[in-house]
Amino acid sequence: MSKTTAKRSLDRVFRPRAVAVIGASRKRHQIGNEVVRNLVGTGFTGPVYPVNPTASVVHSMHCYPKVTAIPGPVDMAVITVPARYVIDAVKDCAKKKVKGLVVITAGFAEVGGRGAELQAELVDLCAKHGIRIVGPNCMGVLNMEPAYSMNASFASTTPEFGGAAFVSQSGALGEAILADAHDLGLGLHMFVSVGNRADIAPYDLLEYWGDDDGVDQILMYLESFGDPERFMKAARRVTGKKPVMVVKAGRSPRGAMAAASHTGSLAGSEAAVDSLFRQCGVLRVDNMKDLFALAGAAQAGKFPRGNRVAIVTNAGGPAILATDACAGLGLEIVDLEPRTRKRLLEAVPPEASVKNPVDLIASADAERYDKALEAVLADTRVDMVLAIFVSPVMIDSAAVARTIVKHASQSKKPVLACLLGKLSNESAIDILRHGGIPNYRYPEEAATALAGLHRLQEARDRSYSLPRRFRVDRDRARKAVGAALASGRQMMKGTELFALFSSYGIPVVPTRIVNRIENALSFADEVGFPVVAKVEAPDIIHKTDTGGVIVDIRTREELLEAYTDLEKRFRKEHPRMEVMVQAMRKDGVEVFFGAAPDPQYGRLMAFGLGGIHVEVLKDVVFRIHPLTRGNAETMVDGIRARQMLDGTRGKPPVDRAQLADILLRLSQMLTDIPEIAELDVNPFLAAWNPKESCVLDCRVRLEKRDGS
Amino acid sequence: MSKTTAKRSLDRVFRPRAVAVIGASRKRHQIGNEVVRNLVGTGFTGPVYPVNPTASVVHSMHCYPKVTAIPGPVDMAVITVPARYVIDAVKDCAKKKVKGLVVITAGFAEVGGRGAELQAELVDLCAKHGIRIVGPNCMGVLNMEPAYSMNASFASTTPEFGGAAFVSQSGALGEAILADAHDLGLGLHMFVSVGNRADIAPYDLLEYWGDDDGVDQILMYLESFGDPERFMKAARRVTGKKPVMVVKAGRSPRGAMAAASHTGSLAGSEAAVDSLFRQCGVLRVDNMKDLFALAGAAQAGKFPRGNRVAIVTNAGGPAILATDACAGLGLEIVDLEPRTRKRLLEAVPPEASVKNPVDLIASADAERYDKALEAVLADTRVDMVLAIFVSPVMIDSAAVARTIVKHASQSKKPVLACLLGKLSNESAIDILRHGGIPNYRYPEEAATALAGLHRLQEARDRSYSLPRRFRVDRDRARKAVGAALASGRQMMKGTELFALFSSYGIPVVPTRIVNRIENALSFADEVGFPVVAKVEAPDIIHKTDTGGVIVDIRTREELLEAYTDLEKRFRKEHPRMEVMVQAMRKDGVEVFFGAAPDPQYGRLMAFGLGGIHVEVLKDVVFRIHPLTRGNAETMVDGIRARQMLDGTRGKPPVDRAQLADILLRLSQMLTDIPEIAELDVNPFLAAWNPKESCVLDCRVRLEKRDGS
Repeated sequence: MSKTTAKRSLDRVFRPRAVAVIGASRKRHQIGNEVVRNLVGTGFTGPVYPVNPTASVVHSMHCYPKVTAIPGPVDMAVITVPARYVIDAVKDCAKKKVKGLVVITAGFAEVGGRGAELQAELVDLCAKHGIRIVGPNCMGVLNMEPAYSMNASFASTTPEFGGAAFVSQSGALGEAILADAHDLGLGLHMFVSVGNRADIAPYDLLEYWGDDDGVDQILMYLESFGDPERFMKAARRVTGKKPVMVVKAGRSPRGAMAAASHTGSLAGSEAAVDSLFRQCGVLRVDNMKDLFALAGAAQAGKFPRGNRVAIVTNAGGPAILATDACAGLGLEIVDLEPRTRKRLLEAVPPEASVKNPVDLIASADAERYDKALEAVLADTRVDMVLAIFVSPVMIDSAAVARTIVKHASQSKKPVLACLLGKLSNESAIDILRHGGIPNYRYPEEAATALAGLHRLQEARDRSYSLPRRFRVDRDRARKAVGAALASGRQMMKGTELFALFSSYGIPVVPTRIVNRIENALSFADEVGFPVVAKVEAPDIIHKTDTGGVIVDIRTREELLEAYTDLEKRFRKEHPRMEVMVQAMRKDGVEVFFGAAPDPQYGRLMAFGLGGIHVEVLKDVVFRIHPLTRGNAETMVDGIRARQMLDGTRGKPPVDRAQLADILLRLSQMLTDIPEIAELDVNPFLAAWNPKESCVLDCRVRLEKRDGS
Repeated sequence: MSKTTAKRSLDRVFRPRAVAVIGASRKRHQIGNEVVRNLVGTGFTGPVYPVNPTASVVHSMHCYPKVTAIPGPVDMAVITVPARYVIDAVKDCAKKKVKGLVVITAGFAEVGGRGAELQAELVDLCAKHGIRIVGPNCMGVLNMEPAYSMNASFASTTPEFGGAAFVSQSGALGEAILADAHDLGLGLHMFVSVGNRADIAPYDLLEYWGDDDGVDQILMYLESFGDPERFMKAARRVTGKKPVMVVKAGRSPRGAMAAASHTGSLAGSEAAVDSLFRQCGVLRVDNMKDLFALAGAAQAGKFPRGNRVAIVTNAGGPAILATDACAGLGLEIVDLEPRTRKRLLEAVPPEASVKNPVDLIASADAERYDKALEAVLADTRVDMVLAIFVSPVMIDSAAVARTIVKHASQSKKPVLACLLGKLSNESAIDILRHGGIPNYRYPEEAATALAGLHRLQEARDRSYSLPRRFRVDRDRARKAVGAALASGRQMMKGTELFALFSSYGIPVVPTRIVNRIENALSFADEVGFPVVAKVEAPDIIHKTDTGGVIVDIRTREELLEAYTDLEKRFRKEHPRMEVMVQAMRKDGVEVFFGAAPDPQYGRLMAFGLGGIHVEVLKDVVFRIHPLTRGNAETMVDGIRARQMLDGTRGKPPVDRAQLADILLRLSQMLTDIPEIAELDVNPFLAAWNPKESCVLDCRVRLEKRDGS
């Protein structure tokens, strides 16, 4: 379906000229009655047709026995009849050329069994007739655009019109969302409760709203993705244009990674979810409360260029709380320019503080706020401003609110407000609200909103496109993979691994696998001592744990001893064992690269420092494959122990760009060779001399694909 | 002052029989007018005497020119006159035998200079006459007990009477606090804005309220401690009896540690603040919002025995959000007993879920909630319950609210409620509030409150008393310290350190300091190879960084080589260098113990793993000296990399109890020998065979004390 067709088909649901309510009811507090009342009550601009074979009048309107009996055309029908009658109702709709359905009725896929069959039947039927569906098992849809003014839901609250579009995967939360939007003064453009997502899914709405100039920001409550790839693709297109914020519920470890490898087991699916959002510029917000706090702030459409905050207050305590919260969220309470401090000094009494937070003290009135806000907003170091006001008995708080509104609307920088305490402030709060400025009851909430604005701006600034390909020897790599599969192995062996990695421009430590001590000795002579000797057998995975790795072999004698030792300890249980001899490279930092399958998100890539950093400290950063350059760079920078890469205790730094590069090469390898199910490069030596960096040990597990 | 005297003297301020307002004003919105109106408006049970030489009537009451002109006795006076008149007013109060003052007037220590002098004068004057002071520079005090019903403040909101006592170090926040308490239905017993704390400080109130049976919980907003030791002492007495919760503002790194040593520089003063609260059972809450959420829940006086939560809901979405939030806060959404599931199955329709969260689905009415709440509250695995209700159009939400109240009041387990969305729920929310159950607008807030209740119970269960002393050779240790000081050194040297640690039962690795290679060789022969050689000179601190440590010396030849190498590299710049030879112990985990001075909190003790764990990963746990056994144990258990102590990759575990023991011995050493300003045991080998555990390297810095 082309984009325009898709848009047109969604318009039939969300922008209908006429709506039928199938299952309209005469009884108050029945869903079929509430939907009719809501449509009429909010003043839907087209005709509403109640449909019910057993009633002749609903809500003072003529009621039709079937949708086909309606005289005029009908674009959309809301279905509230019991599940067993839905298919017949839809057949009628098809006859009537209805092109959009909102199926509120429950009892479909969510109950399993017969319900799931019924849903499949519904989807097939609609697909056949080109009908788009919201639901089933949903709360309905709202389009608050004045041209439609449609509340096709059974929600008891109708929000105000505005620029936010909201999709909720929970109907029950929908009720709460609409009430909160109303109470907090967040204007909504559209609201959709997607229910079982039998057809229209959140990513469809992302695309739809992404292209809708009336939508300034997109808010989502999600419990799952459906198709994560489509979601990412849609989001990547939209997030550069307008903010997309999401609360993703279901942090519990259902859907955890199937892979048993320790690499995989490090990543809860939560890591994948976080990555997914980050990689496509969607801002994940912790909870509904923070979502509303941020959406209220984002309404003004102003975003800070950086993280530098100025606070203007008339009281110390709340300013300290705001400072703490800002610092905790990564915002900077910036030192003001000397010029600003000078201007402030002229405007405030001597007991006031002209350092940030600017404390105008309790006697501050609207005029003092006016001068102070003007000064800090003009400061080039300031990216955003928080105005705090605790209303003292002697000050006109409404006048202060008007001053804040004035500056907020004139400035290009975001200005948020925190009017504390007193109920008599209500009128001041109303002034703020009508001025499009949300009021925060607690300074910490305002700080959360400021930090969110900054994160939204960061998300917009980032690029989400994939990098250009490296030149690699893909055929040679495929040959190595093919050889392993042809001999019936899942795990690639040494020579194959060497071919695979070097084909992709990833250096591997000089290595030889030997069966005889003579060959071990001649290889060691060739590459020079010290060397490392490792037992090689397909069924030994964590070699270090079992004492199968002997390091720092300095002489021929020691190598002889090590070889004999490995033979003695492993030959009996692993009769086909061999010994791997490697040049010992250690002048650098050992890092770890991994890739593991995720049941929901395709493949996850991982980066961390080697050894305990991965397995004990869990200091690992994950991203979903494929990686952008930005992804790779933030992976390398994202580990807690990043200082280890900068050089510590007199050690030189390593080449971070090289590490990001290797992540990108590995990502390309995963794209090119889908048979690679899992890989674990551990350790990779990030050498102080980057030319000596190399893979020291690795595992690659393959899975046959069709045609391989 | 004895405890009873202290209590009696505070009663004069907070439980006066008669109150004078010095600076009473005829003008609305003047502080001196608002205080009189508040006292009269809330119905203070004693007489209120306005005092003002220029007015004869204030708020329809006879006004006295001076406090001495008042006919009856006066216990407490509120002072609102400008700062320059305060001393004269207090002199009058002394004549009138007033014993308590609330000085609202600003312009004292907070402005420095003359103000600070004025405050000192005020304090001296009052001490002379046995007068206790709240303030100056405060918002006033409230005692809502019906026997007093006193609002001696200029706050515009009067909260309801209840069991919470609140002290705020910010007057401006006080206004907000009272408004929030009122709006959220939190009943207050007393409220005190302490202002400059010239006399009555938060720890005085801790003691006062700790002994007051009318006070169920103590809430604090603090910006600093005054005397942390007194605060801890007072808190340790109270927190076993009733919950103490605090918001501590000022996380910014002012007051950071003066010590330059890397040990010290790891600890922001925030680590010390966190420790201080934890060590005396005070629950630190992130922000005012969470404080109110928790205080509301704690009002019922019910605390969970464990962390196991059951959720009863009529909608999936909010239950998932609550589940996520609970899990994130360390609470368990527990598997219900089979018996409970059976009972639930009988009470709910087949589409409902009887697994936790128990989803009663949208059709659930009061009766279904009744049966479900009864079943989960009877479940022995359940410690607390969260009831979530999203009001569907067809259900009587007031009846559901009444059911929740019924179970909450009958059960010994905490029950919180989350009624979402719809404004028409207001009456249901009122029913909850009158039933003493706070309603949370968002499931995450309810989860925060549940987690807070659990933490409060944990704090009550813990012991805050210091452990018994170890038997040690204190004299020998003092002698070693004395020797260093006598020779003018701040840093103790090897033999002294050996004496110090072994006197306190802390094993030290076999070590000898030598000047000649022969002695090095004979010592190595004695303890056996391998050994370690280290350069020893007072001006080399981080030996590893400068290559001054050579490890794994396996033979006499290698020792000779190492010795010569150290000589060659260090002798020239450090002509008085020596070489320390040590047995090389390495079969264990290297850990770190430290102690460093903190300008505010005395001394901080630190524990972590050695090497990069301390310096790069900052994986260090701090507590304030002296330690309880519980403190020492939670330090050892508190590091992120705790798994390293349990044995990883086939290594055995180490003896955690031994490590806690060494922390306690070090803490005792710090108590006994105040000259130890700073110590740094890094590394200490926690050997797999605990008998081989020992100090491998350490530094102790001394500071002369009076008399040492």
